[in-house]
This record gives sequence, structure tokens and C-alpha cells, in this order.
Amino acid sequence: MILGRVVGTVVSTRKEPKIAGIKFLLVEKIDPETMEGKGDFLVAMDSVGAGPGEVVFYVAGSSSRMTAVTEGKPADATITAIVDAIEIEGTLVYQKDKI
Amino acid sequence: MILGRVVGTVVSTRKEPKIAGIKFLLVEKIDPETMEGKGDFLVAMDSVGAGPGEVVFYVAGSSSRMTAVTEGKPADATITAIVDAIEIEGTLVYQKDKI
Amino acid sequence: MILGRVVGTVVSTRKEPKIAGIKFLLVEKIDPETMEGKGDFLVAMDSVGAGPGEVVFYVAGSSSRMTAVTEGKPADATITAIVDAIEIEGTLVYQKDKI
Amino acid sequence: MILGRVVGTVVSTRKEPKIAGIKFLLVEKIDPETMEGKGDFLVAMDSVGAGPGEVVFYVAGSSSRMTAVTEGKPADATITAIVDAIEIEGTLVYQKDKI
Amino acid sequence: MILGRVVGTVVSTRKEPKIAGIKFLLVEKIDPETMEGKGDFLVAMDSVGAGPGEVVFYVAGSSSRMTAVTEGKPADATITAIVDAIEIEGTLVYQKDKI
Repeated sequence: MILGRVVGTVVSTRKEPKIAGIKFLLVEKIDPETMEGKGDFLVAMDSVGAGPGEVVFYVAGSSSRMTAVTEGKPADATITAIVDAIEIEGTLVYQKDKI
Repeated sequence: MILGRVVGTVVSTRKEPKIAGIKFLLVEKIDPETMEGKGDFLVAMDSVGAGPGEVVFYVAGSSSRMTAVTEGKPADATITAIVDAIEIEGTLVYQKDKI
Repeated sequence: MILGRVVGTVVSTRKEPKIAGIKFLLVEKIDPETMEGKGDFLVAMDSVGAGPGEVVFYVAGSSSRMTAVTEGKPADATITAIVDAIEIEGTLVYQKDKI
Repeated sequence: MILGRVVGTVVSTRKEPKIAGIKFLLVEKIDPETMEGKGDFLVAMDSVGAGPGEVVFYVAGSSSRMTAVTEGKPADATITAIVDAIEIEGTLVYQKDKI
Repeated sequence: MILGRVVGTVVSTRKEPKIAGIKFLLVEKIDPETMEGKGDFLVAMDSVGAGPGEVVFYVAGSSSRMTAVTEGKPADATITAIVDAIEIEGTLVYQKDKI
């Protein structure tokens, strides 16, 4: 799975009927060492209710159809987790703000 | 899914029988931050009637066979949505012209 | 699908039994804006009788098994069309020579 | 399969129900000639009990679901081996420390 | 399929049970124009008995499970041919030594 940040949304009215009602999130891949965006974007479906600014990981390929939201649908990238924390070499490089 | 712009068409008379009658669109990947083309092209099948100049997203891999048009066919990229709007960090970076 | 030009052949006598009798074509990916090769090569199976010098597109991934020639075989790239013409922004950038 | 080193972990509480209880390891791809990290990271599931610092290889795509841990789950990268040794051109370039 | 040269081996004792008994070869991708290595390595399973130094091609993705050796196993790259000769634009750029 690949780490990214939800940076926006994509809206479409004319689309494949099977994907009607699904929210399309714009995700920017991030480098976990710096937590900076890599300038590389994709459109992902969402199985976990991710919102703007959240760090997530998504699954690509045929496995992106293996969630309740995307089963049988033409998906190639689905967000399957909102990330709470990332630890590298024993150091916490990212921790989701708690409200 | 990946964002792109329909920039042309590809015509073939000698082709795999299963893909006869399908329109092949030339798609250039775009960077949603600038909406500029990335100089990276692919040939996509089309499940939504996309036309020249339109911003779309396409699905890649086995999921590109999961539309009414492409089921059971040797497809690895199918346009599944014509994009109306893209929003990044609360700013509308793209909006399809209304006629 | 990706555009390429058939630039050569690959010969193998010791190979997986399932792919015996199949012709292996060397394909160089091309940039449709210039029709120049990109220096990026792959070995493709062929479902349409493509020959040296011809511009083609090939399908990658599991869909490369979805032709009469490659069904059930360990293929990850199969040529599914010989390209007659490519049009970009209303301009014909490539047209196959007619003899 | 691709060689990498386990460099950390990713924690998520809000995730696809199917992947609950699975450990997510952060893996950095490595160059086997130098055994240095390539600065390219991914999140992998783990079928072999890999730990921090260990050199592993992972399987990508649909095959990442073909382990006891990941069957039927939305996985696109699963660690399937902890590497003991890598030999290039007759030279041992990596050997796991024995304790 | 992608051309490469077998440059080494990878040894693992702690691995997914399904891949026990399989040999893991280290393959370096090659540029067929120069036959030089590209510095890009992967671990491949082997369905044809390839040995060190041999030029091969491997199949990636789900098709890498479509050989007698790899069926049902978590494989994403399997060598399916030992290459005897590569011809580009009518010139023999590679020919396997005969002993």
C-alpha cells in the first residue's frame, strides 16, 4: 500500500453507472521521511470515510475491489486506512492530531 | 484512477476481434495542480462517451474490464468518468465549461 | 494500452511449455507526439500478426491473456492492434503507409 | 519480488474491517549492489513475522493475497520472505547476522 | 515480458510456506540495445532452470502464477524463457554462446 494525503475531491456527473454514488478523493503521494507531498496525484475511492488533509494509505490493483464499497466496481485505488502514526527507526515521524 | 485529457484518437483496422467496434482514445496524463499535460500518453477504451479536450479519469489494470463496454475484453485502461470539477485544498482548480 | 513499434524479435528454445510456438516480438515504446522511440523495450506476444517496423499498441497485465493466442498463458504484454493512424488535436501525426 | 528493509511501522485505528488485526510494516526498497535504501517506501502486510531492520522481499499485486494472512484481503504488497543471504556474481553481498 | 540477466541468488529460510523449495534468482533488467544492465534488480522465481549469467525474460503480475512451478503461489515475477538470440532492426544484438 502507498502512503498519501487527501488533498481534494474530483466531481463527475457523467461516469460509469457502477461508480455512481462513490466519492472520488484526490490523493497526493507522500514521502514518509519528510511527510511532504511528492507532486504525484491519483484519484482514489474511499472505504473508510477519509477527509481533507488526512494521511491515509490506499491499496492499488485488483485488491482495490476487495472492500464493501468497491466490490465488483471498476476501481484501481481505494483508501483502506486513515493513518494515526508512522514510526521510522524508532522515531515517531507522524502522529495524527487528537482533538 | 489517473487524471488525463483526451487529446486524440487511434485508428486500427487489423486488431484483436474482441476489440472490434471499440473507440480508442489517446489520453495525456495531466498534473491536477497546473492542469498541464505531462507528456505521458496512453490509449484508453471509453465507457462514458468522452470527447476531444475533455478532462477524464481512467481506471487501469483488471478493473478496466469492469464496465459494460469492456467486459471480457483485452483492456488495461478504460475511461470511467468525465470530470466536471477538481478541488485542491479548498480551491477549485478545474471546472468544465458549461455551454 | 501503450503505443510502440515492433523493432525486433526474441528467440528462445528453453522456455515454459505453455508458450511454445508463440512468437516474441521486441517492442520499443514510442512518444506519439514525435513518433520517436523512447529507448524503453519489452517483449510482447502477438495476437494480430504484427511485423517489423509496424506501429502497434499492446495490452498489459491480466488482460494480455484475453486473446485467442494467449488465453491461459503466462503473458503480461500482448499486441492487440496494428495502428493505421494517430490523430492529436485534429492533426494526423501518424499514418501507416499504404502499398 | 522486490528487496527491501523493514524500517518502521504504520498504525491505523480507522481502517477497512477486513484488514483489522494485521500489522502494517513500512518497507524501504534497497539496491542489492550497495544494500542502501533507495528512498522509496511502501506499506506491506507481513506473512512471515518480519521485524525492524530485517532485509525481506515482498510480493506485489494480486499474488499478495496468496498467503494465509492476506487471503481475500485488500493487500497489494505482502512480505513473503526474510532474506538470509544475497549473492551477486559469486560474491556474498549480504548475510544476515547470526546471534 | 521484460529482458534481464540472472546475476545472483537470494536465500531465505523463514518464508511463506507456499514458496518453500523454490529457487529465488536475482535478475538485473537489461537494455537490449547495449545488453548492459540497467542497475534495476528484482527477485524472480524460475520455471525453466535458468542459471547465472543467462539472459532471460520474465513475466510479471498474475501471469507469473501460470507456470507449473508457480501455480497458486505468491509470485509476481517468473522467468519463462532463456533467451538464445535478440535481433533488432535486422541486426543480431545478442546470441547465446554455444558450447
